Amino acid sequence: MSRLLLNCDIGESFGNWTMGLDAEVMPFIDCANVACGFHAGDPSIMRKTVSLALKHGVQVGAHPAYQDLQGFGRRSMQYTSQEIQDLLHYQIGALDGICRAQGARVSYVKPHGAMYNDMMANPAQLRAVIQAIAAYGELPLMLLATCDNSAAQALGDEYGVTLWFEAFADRAYDNHGHLVSRQLPGAVHHDVETIVQQALTISRSQPLTASDGSPLVLQADTLCVHGDNASSVAAVQRIREALKPA
Amino acid sequence: MSRLLLNCDIGESFGNWTMGLDAEVMPFIDCANVACGFHAGDPSIMRKTVSLALKHGVQVGAHPAYQDLQGFGRRSMQYTSQEIQDLLHYQIGALDGICRAQGARVSYVKPHGAMYNDMMANPAQLRAVIQAIAAYGELPLMLLATCDNSAAQALGDEYGVTLWFEAFADRAYDNHGHLVSRQLPGAVHHDVETIVQQALTISRSQPLTASDGSPLVLQADTLCVHGDNASSVAAVQRIREALKPA
Amino acid sequence: MSRLLLNCDIGESFGNWTMGLDAEVMPFIDCANVACGFHAGDPSIMRKTVSLALKHGVQVGAHPAYQDLQGFGRRSMQYTSQEIQDLLHYQIGALDGICRAQGARVSYVKPHGAMYNDMMANPAQLRAVIQAIAAYGELPLMLLATCDNSAAQALGDEYGVTLWFEAFADRAYDNHGHLVSRQLPGAVHHDVETIVQQALTISRSQPLTASDGSPLVLQADTLCVHGDNASSVAAVQRIREALKPA
Amino acid sequence: MSRLLLNCDIGESFGNWTMGLDAEVMPFIDCANVACGFHAGDPSIMRKTVSLALKHGVQVGAHPAYQDLQGFGRRSMQYTSQEIQDLLHYQIGALDGICRAQGARVSYVKPHGAMYNDMMANPAQLRAVIQAIAAYGELPLMLLATCDNSAAQALGDEYGVTLWFEAFADRAYDNHGHLVSRQLPGAVHHDVETIVQQALTISRSQPLTASDGSPLVLQADTLCVHGDNASSVAAVQRIREALKPA
Repeated sequence: MSRLLLNCDIGESFGNWTMGLDAEVMPFIDCANVACGFHAGDPSIMRKTVSLALKHGVQVGAHPAYQDLQGFGRRSMQYTSQEIQDLLHYQIGALDGICRAQGARVSYVKPHGAMYNDMMANPAQLRAVIQAIAAYGELPLMLLATCDNSAAQALGDEYGVTLWFEAFADRAYDNHGHLVSRQLPGAVHHDVETIVQQALTISRSQPLTASDGSPLVLQADTLCVHGDNASSVAAVQRIREALKPA
Repeated sequence: MSRLLLNCDIGESFGNWTMGLDAEVMPFIDCANVACGFHAGDPSIMRKTVSLALKHGVQVGAHPAYQDLQGFGRRSMQYTSQEIQDLLHYQIGALDGICRAQGARVSYVKPHGAMYNDMMANPAQLRAVIQAIAAYGELPLMLLATCDNSAAQALGDEYGVTLWFEAFADRAYDNHGHLVSRQLPGAVHHDVETIVQQALTISRSQPLTASDGSPLVLQADTLCVHGDNASSVAAVQRIREALKPA
Repeated sequence: MSRLLLNCDIGESFGNWTMGLDAEVMPFIDCANVACGFHAGDPSIMRKTVSLALKHGVQVGAHPAYQDLQGFGRRSMQYTSQEIQDLLHYQIGALDGICRAQGARVSYVKPHGAMYNDMMANPAQLRAVIQAIAAYGELPLMLLATCDNSAAQALGDEYGVTLWFEAFADRAYDNHGHLVSRQLPGAVHHDVETIVQQALTISRSQPLTASDGSPLVLQADTLCVHGDNASSVAAVQRIREALKPA
Repeated sequence: MSRLLLNCDIGESFGNWTMGLDAEVMPFIDCANVACGFHAGDPSIMRKTVSLALKHGVQVGAHPAYQDLQGFGRRSMQYTSQEIQDLLHYQIGALDGICRAQGARVSYVKPHGAMYNDMMANPAQLRAVIQAIAAYGELPLMLLATCDNSAAQALGDEYGVTLWFEAFADRAYDNHGHLVSRQLPGAVHHDVETIVQQALTISRSQPLTASDGSPLVLQADTLCVHGDNASSVAAVQRIREALKPA
């Protein structure tokens, strides 16, 4: 990838409940992380979401999660490495089935919520995820860019899995390149100019200013953006325009 | 298919609950109808089930159902045609994902329980199922053989979907080739000799005796057998031996 | 009851998904039909909903449903009479447990969605519901007022269960006192003056004009109102004011 | 309680899946810990289980769990204290609803699986459980007896909740009165004579021999027994006879 792709969590409605401005944000993104039914999404929501992504030429990524609809996949749960792999194969396959019926395929995988956090915190779980994706075949894994991606990259290389590192334009980073906890002040940027500037800085591989004032360079392939509400969609549109090739 | 394949519902355990003698019956069957998580099965059960099938050279079929774990997919539910298709794509895809991770693929589709019965009773639902399978691509559909398969066959031809008609060796038929209701006496054969004889009769395309005494010829590609308990497994073994090519 | 109570479906959020303007409509109603976890609601949503109702002096009713979260309890499902009773006891009890922890109790029962419609269409199911409520003890059942409530009333009397008949201010009725199907034009009133007038007419036991032009008198104890959006909440406020004792 | 009550996990079937020899073990126990639908059990299973308990004069206890049917409630999950309380009120209430319909009531509460383990490992969670039970009103809590029950007892006293401490006749203990992990050799006794002797020793408040050889006195009100299979039921029957008042 020669430019910073915009990825966004999409298809997080369920049954009669609606979440997110999917139709509004879709025109401005490159990659849609589509919920696969375990934390959000159901077969019919998934079909509509894939259809919307294809209409806008957006890549469909699987966004698998722990099986916890009530907790929206945000609660850590004790799964074995084998069970994590089973969860991934089931959910990637399910979304791939929905895609096939529309002449498309899943293009990459980005674990959701607690599955994502546990994968970043626990090398054994990252290995399990990468093994699962290698066994499925030919899909890149999207994961968090930090100040040093080398350990993850070595794991990806070991299994022949392409990694897409993602950064955030609206979050503060500490000097290790980890996201500052949402519990702390200043963790989330709300000013759209700040967000657009951080997006540009990341896209140019220039240093951000970490929370302790030190410079931080993130090697990122993709930027995670949000379609939760009108102001986040407006920010995505601004980022899209700012990142346009000259 | 030049001979009568034996198909069996498999993988109907869930979480900590075990159902069926899968390991015992697998050596004697050709086609395993594997539960896909909506009426039974979970991602880990599915992985073990596919592994067992592959070990015995048994074809893996998707056995999708209505979303009703507590009712085991046996309660009719009001889905639209579109929703039926979404359910099918999700579940076939999920099992295909599990298969891919083991270097295999789903080989056919047989709807389960109420989804199967509703499909046989309602031409609009049969059309929805066939459309869904056509859109997924290249999988045969397993459905009930009756005394006249022509209407179903015409639908299959319209969408280019291969149909595999199945018959039962342990059930009585009425003169239309429908199964006699389990509520009625004599609906289910328990004597293993009777079962083996009916299997042989069907395999030779000879007439069965319907419940009203009239002759009934079923054109069947496959025979549905059962691995619920030791006696049904013993019957499958006997059928397997009886059907062996001379 | 000497006046027309206003009842409203409440607590239909689930996990991370929000539905309905519960806080906005609660000040204007008398009876909150609280979802019990099978079509909507979860234990934490239910706790917050009960707390909100108690703060406004609103009676808490159980709003039990078929077990179908994805279909929001709106799909008919084949349950036996005994299973319907089990569903009711479980869900009424669950909400009662949430209420007890706040020093309150469930005050009445109104089945939801398909369970409600099936109960009104099928006397055997109405009997099952009434039996279940009688066995639980001392709760009234809320059900649809028609032009002749006598058959339902006889069933209620047989089991000693109080019935609260409900009418709708925003729906057209046919000459049997059944709601005109939402598929037909004119089925739902959107004009707030029309809605308020229908509420007043019902409260005075005066005749409505049925869809065929004939007069229709509904004997109603309660009026079903809606808190889905700002305009429906505004209508509830107008009805509340119009119905105020002089 | 002047004697050692026998408690047993019961009602752990779900839908079409059967688990445990409930009918066989019920005659020999005093207290049935009934699954409440979150890890096992469904409304109809619960009704049958309560009916069986009442027939044998067995007390019905609520056996609530984390919401994890596939993991049988055995996986730890991150719930807040408030969410734990909501889970408890919902599930105790649900079982109480099933009991009421049979003229009975829930008699005590014993958390299941990971909820039980987390409660024993984490004082904040034990407090949440005790608070929840206090708010529900008048039910004892069953929890693990260790060599020093005083901290738990102080919490129980603070909220006015009666505690029933339970011990195991078929498990080895370490010198702190904790169960030896099932991963270690000798953790589970299989010899029925050993089991019966341990039951008698506990019932007489005599010292057991801990895994390091030191004496261990457990102050227990109840003994946890198992109805999983024929040999565990046989052991329960032997314990029942051994504990009979002379």
